[in-house]
Amino acid sequence: MDEENTVFIGSKETMSYVMALLTQFNSGSDEAIIKARGRSISKAVDVAEITKNRFLKDSKITDIKTDTEKLDNEEGGTTNVSSIEITMKK
Amino acid sequence: MDEENTVFIGSKETMSYVMALLTQFNSGSDEAIIKARGRSISKAVDVAEITKNRFLKDSKITDIKTDTEKLDNEEGGTTNVSSIEITMKK
Repeated sequence: MDEENTVFIGSKETMSYVMALLTQFNSGSDEAIIKARGRSISKAVDVAEITKNRFLKDSKITDIKTDTEKLDNEEGGTTNVSSIEITMKK
Repeated sequence: MDEENTVFIGSKETMSYVMALLTQFNSGSDEAIIKARGRSISKAVDVAEITKNRFLKDSKITDIKTDTEKLDNEEGGTTNVSSIEITMKK
């Protein structure tokens, strides 16, 4: 799975990412991945649920993985942050 | 899986739920479920990741499911909210 099929969740509104995901599927991909870190994880789940329940009813979540990533912080150390990867297929 | 093995994530600090999960495992359960809704979903992932990386290194996440639940709102209608269920085994 390359980065092209991936929607990264950030600080925009939930529906922006739903649109990005739909665009992904409409451009010919059968599979797309939603990635998020930290507090955006809740939004990633919203994006997946809204997409499959409201917009692409034949799509489904095929895999969900979580991980812990180390990010550099301002003090020169590292901070652990949880991440999620939701794989969807249509 | 009955409710006894379940840790519901709410507004307390993350570490409170890590402790609750560890208590669950230490009381003899080989399996525990972490449940959360809405913005607490991110915290649920933190609880699972912190538990397996820092406290119970032989535990692992065996399943993650998401769903959409309908909650009654103050206007007498319903609001959709995403939920997550993370199953862990030691």
